[in-house]
Amino acid sequence: MRYDFASDNTAGIAPSALAALNAANADFARAYGADDVTARAADAIRARLDADAEVRFVFSGTAANAIALAMLAQPYEAVLAHQAAHVCTDETGAPGFFGHGVGLIGLPGESGKIDPVGLKAILEEPEVGHRQPPAALSLTQATEYGAVYSSEDLRHLIEPVKARGFGVHLDGARLANAAAAGFDLKDIPRLGVDVLVFGGAKSGLAASEALVLFDRSLARRLDNRLKQAGQTASKSRFLAAPFLGLMESGDWEAGGAHANLMAQRLAAGIAVGSRFVLAHPVEANAVFVRMPEAAHRRLNDLGWACYRFDDGSVRFVCSWATQVEAVDELVAVICGLE
Amino acid sequence: MRYDFASDNTAGIAPSALAALNAANADFARAYGADDVTARAADAIRARLDADAEVRFVFSGTAANAIALAMLAQPYEAVLAHQAAHVCTDETGAPGFFGHGVGLIGLPGESGKIDPVGLKAILEEPEVGHRQPPAALSLTQATEYGAVYSSEDLRHLIEPVKARGFGVHLDGARLANAAAAGFDLKDIPRLGVDVLVFGGAKSGLAASEALVLFDRSLARRLDNRLKQAGQTASKSRFLAAPFLGLMESGDWEAGGAHANLMAQRLAAGIAVGSRFVLAHPVEANAVFVRMPEAAHRRLNDLGWACYRFDDGSVRFVCSWATQVEAVDELVAVICGLE
Amino acid sequence: MRYDFASDNTAGIAPSALAALNAANADFARAYGADDVTARAADAIRARLDADAEVRFVFSGTAANAIALAMLAQPYEAVLAHQAAHVCTDETGAPGFFGHGVGLIGLPGESGKIDPVGLKAILEEPEVGHRQPPAALSLTQATEYGAVYSSEDLRHLIEPVKARGFGVHLDGARLANAAAAGFDLKDIPRLGVDVLVFGGAKSGLAASEALVLFDRSLARRLDNRLKQAGQTASKSRFLAAPFLGLMESGDWEAGGAHANLMAQRLAAGIAVGSRFVLAHPVEANAVFVRMPEAAHRRLNDLGWACYRFDDGSVRFVCSWATQVEAVDELVAVICGLE
Amino acid sequence: MRYDFASDNTAGIAPSALAALNAANADFARAYGADDVTARAADAIRARLDADAEVRFVFSGTAANAIALAMLAQPYEAVLAHQAAHVCTDETGAPGFFGHGVGLIGLPGESGKIDPVGLKAILEEPEVGHRQPPAALSLTQATEYGAVYSSEDLRHLIEPVKARGFGVHLDGARLANAAAAGFDLKDIPRLGVDVLVFGGAKSGLAASEALVLFDRSLARRLDNRLKQAGQTASKSRFLAAPFLGLMESGDWEAGGAHANLMAQRLAAGIAVGSRFVLAHPVEANAVFVRMPEAAHRRLNDLGWACYRFDDGSVRFVCSWATQVEAVDELVAVICGLE
Repeated sequence: MRYDFASDNTAGIAPSALAALNAANADFARAYGADDVTARAADAIRARLDADAEVRFVFSGTAANAIALAMLAQPYEAVLAHQAAHVCTDETGAPGFFGHGVGLIGLPGESGKIDPVGLKAILEEPEVGHRQPPAALSLTQATEYGAVYSSEDLRHLIEPVKARGFGVHLDGARLANAAAAGFDLKDIPRLGVDVLVFGGAKSGLAASEALVLFDRSLARRLDNRLKQAGQTASKSRFLAAPFLGLMESGDWEAGGAHANLMAQRLAAGIAVGSRFVLAHPVEANAVFVRMPEAAHRRLNDLGWACYRFDDGSVRFVCSWATQVEAVDELVAVICGLE
Repeated sequence: MRYDFASDNTAGIAPSALAALNAANADFARAYGADDVTARAADAIRARLDADAEVRFVFSGTAANAIALAMLAQPYEAVLAHQAAHVCTDETGAPGFFGHGVGLIGLPGESGKIDPVGLKAILEEPEVGHRQPPAALSLTQATEYGAVYSSEDLRHLIEPVKARGFGVHLDGARLANAAAAGFDLKDIPRLGVDVLVFGGAKSGLAASEALVLFDRSLARRLDNRLKQAGQTASKSRFLAAPFLGLMESGDWEAGGAHANLMAQRLAAGIAVGSRFVLAHPVEANAVFVRMPEAAHRRLNDLGWACYRFDDGSVRFVCSWATQVEAVDELVAVICGLE
Repeated sequence: MRYDFASDNTAGIAPSALAALNAANADFARAYGADDVTARAADAIRARLDADAEVRFVFSGTAANAIALAMLAQPYEAVLAHQAAHVCTDETGAPGFFGHGVGLIGLPGESGKIDPVGLKAILEEPEVGHRQPPAALSLTQATEYGAVYSSEDLRHLIEPVKARGFGVHLDGARLANAAAAGFDLKDIPRLGVDVLVFGGAKSGLAASEALVLFDRSLARRLDNRLKQAGQTASKSRFLAAPFLGLMESGDWEAGGAHANLMAQRLAAGIAVGSRFVLAHPVEANAVFVRMPEAAHRRLNDLGWACYRFDDGSVRFVCSWATQVEAVDELVAVICGLE
Repeated sequence: MRYDFASDNTAGIAPSALAALNAANADFARAYGADDVTARAADAIRARLDADAEVRFVFSGTAANAIALAMLAQPYEAVLAHQAAHVCTDETGAPGFFGHGVGLIGLPGESGKIDPVGLKAILEEPEVGHRQPPAALSLTQATEYGAVYSSEDLRHLIEPVKARGFGVHLDGARLANAAAAGFDLKDIPRLGVDVLVFGGAKSGLAASEALVLFDRSLARRLDNRLKQAGQTASKSRFLAAPFLGLMESGDWEAGGAHANLMAQRLAAGIAVGSRFVLAHPVEANAVFVRMPEAAHRRLNDLGWACYRFDDGSVRFVCSWATQVEAVDELVAVICGLE
């Protein structure tokens, strides 16, 4: 079975990240994040965002998102998120676990982007004691369906939410792909995001995401919080060094751009040469194809791993590691399906 | 500052582990633990334990321990553990977080080993509705104070607990050191342990522990449990491969043996040449020294990181990476302290 | 404002319950449920159900339901329930709080009754690690929309669920109304329900529900569980005595029957004399009326408290305390609305 | 068995409270605390405290305390409390359950009063990431061992804690007894307490405690919080009316004074006439007696329920309902013990 397009986490570690990991493996180092490499990696992320934020390196995007939401909403409150957001559909209820029952209110919108009209409707509902009222907004950039919000899009979602004093979380598991699509990372703090998960694994790391707190008041006793939640690396340098390698080499951006380019090539090949229709605009690194079950099964039988999503389409994902030849090979196979 | 002896997590990644990580970084692989490397690493651990257990690779020993305890005790119950156990003193209340309020009952005993008499006394207390009754026993092998339980020691602790139907957890963060001290790993399932945390980070990995379930009934929907708890690696091979490298090379055992040997050398040097007294028998990789605050501070000032523990002694820890020269250098410095 | 029909918790305490409370207030009594009155009240409930169940008296239906669900599903699992069930819409996320993140999967079906086809579809979905798989079914009898399941209806829902080893919870906040509609209480254990919340407050008590465990294995350390969850009355007799009064007098049944009769009278009056249509069959004690917002507001302005529900209709609820004259008065008012 | 002195929750409902409950049982009333009786009862409590606080009536002191602590400390933080405080020893770990793992740090001190020197020592310990640092102080007035803090005592405990920005909780389950001993309730807000549990059950109610929030910022979405936690009475008037009856009649104070007087009489009788020694000063309504196990057992055999406490003494508790004859009878029995 070929897993090239099954997800962006079937790829390995990017060369610059691995080189940095190997280089960091010398001598003894202070544990629990007090080492130099960790400090430099945090600086690299702050520089990208042009903000004096608190940065911590954690193992898991699921945990990072859930901890972020637990910072912004109490157990008797809820978080507003797109109904197809990873926090809603792919994290086994982690927000409720880390948030001790915190609710999720799923919002509609095309291609994973929250519709501002639907958001407004929810915000205007009167609060009642027997429901969990919203306390925060969770955004995903790029979205689960491969779309990218413009800064203007985000402003329309964030402003009414901040006006009510609610917090804002941004799941940036595929932030590198959004950046490659033209989204300016420096807009994240400017727009009022409080907590960002700055994606690592899908950008070429083994297992590391950066939790970025623009609102410093949320960072009180953050190290205790992360330690209790099992998200503190004793040998912190090995989470931070690959991140630093990816950032210093520019590969974080280059990998995102490459993945998007491969997705464009794949989408174009399918659109032009096959009888299948794309389900969503291809703005980042994923291609969603409307494909009958027989064709999907045939594709799997031919050795190409790919999955059907909740919207009914079949997803193909590119990454920093996707090869042009593989794209062309897959296009040929899809175009040959009956 | 020199961190050689500050902890066993100041060391880097062992060469065989790092080589395996590098080797695993080829091609695409199935995500979330469905890859071959993960399967082989689990096999290697099962072979060491001579048991057909469920094995999962997680990021954090704190999380692994806390999840194990949450499997064995309900929120309205408590876990029996040595009062100096890592779960009691060094995990920021993680058992209560992952166990939703589960209690810890601290037991006394010398050098971190639970005194069977104290255990018996607790077990014989009548249950009342307004306290959290014990439901499980948590053991640490080797202990926080560098002692190693014999299988006979463990039998005396486990038998009365199992007789009441309680579960047993073994924190094996330093299991390699216990093994090097003569403890037979195959006794772990034979003695009735239900959940083992098979240590990785302190044995030469970056961030990986193996959660081993001998009681398969605890493994129901384990993948959902770990995913929700933020302990699932999407790129699982990079947790598993270094573990496999360490196991296949024999470095897991060799590193433990080296660490113990270095600790013996350090202890002997201090005992013979200095005016300080050892606080605990040196059976594994840690040396605890009764040292006045002035001497401790002087040592820190001379550039040697080391910490005072709850028992009042100062700890020095050796690892797979500890160098003979460093031991001798430290001995000389300590012997020169006034 | 008149609250006669706003809910069935706007009524007071039934005379037989209050008399029993007053009678119980003599002398000193053992605390925490070890008194005679508590034992007798539990017997009375067991007799109604013809089952040797564990029975405890708790303060709150929300807590009783949530604790029941926490017994049946782990945090990384989900409970299947009608999407309009009280646990889904009116308990501020209590299942997630008491269940530490346990999920709820909302099922469709008319008038609050789960559609067996929808249930079957969910049960047949393959399990995946990144979602919370179902572990239990929660039923409501009578439903939130005033319908009553037949035993045959329940059998079709419970059988496929039990076949998978899942647990079953029954929210019986309005069980007296279902019983009055012909539902045989003795079918509850026979059908395989594991945990029942036997309703008290809506049947004429101040604040008491009985938690009934047919599956005794769930009752292990139940008193510790309830104490920790803040649902243990120190002066237990004052929760139990009114329940006993209601049961011994037959008022639990009589009150349910009266409430249903009043609802029938109200429904008939509206159906015959007004221009409004009933939204659901009236099988228990609630009447749902399709009513434009202007009419609803006018009714409120005329002093009759009533609320619009999620299905868009306006609800009127009768109770043991509803007076015929009030029904007729309300009918006249509604028939006079434009 | 006679339960007169077993606890102060073996007594019934005080006449003025019961009369108010009966009187409140007329007509329909708005549910969930929006009724007039609830408002008036809250006013009565605010008047006693001379403070414009948020007041809610909940079912259980255990829940009230635990919810209060969850307001003041995060899961990765701890609450400082006397090691014999009810929250530490008698609530089955409820703070950890409602607080999702929040820790408790037990402090020493005579007769249940926290020693300011021990508090200071804890406050001066450096914070580390791997432990739960203190975030709040929990006080008990009167204490579990029948002592009463002076306002000056409390000031010495509260000031250093507030200076660090920590919150303060006061468990007032026996506040009426402290008031009767001369403690001025109006000092509670003046001293900086943030959350008070104003005791009801031990003062003559069935099951009702008032949660009083002086710090209004903690009250945000309080009704959602309480509903989710199963501490909202739908028929709120039946929690509030008895409270109001107790307050308006002055019986809350009178009952506390009577209980204290009875305890004094009991203590004097034992001190003068028996061979047993009092274990603690008798400042409130409990008498602790140093008594060998044989004597304790003999007392139980003679039909007097009483319990041995963690300090090794046997406790006798008086309440509003204690009769002089019963005290004298018990004194005679104790004086006759060998």
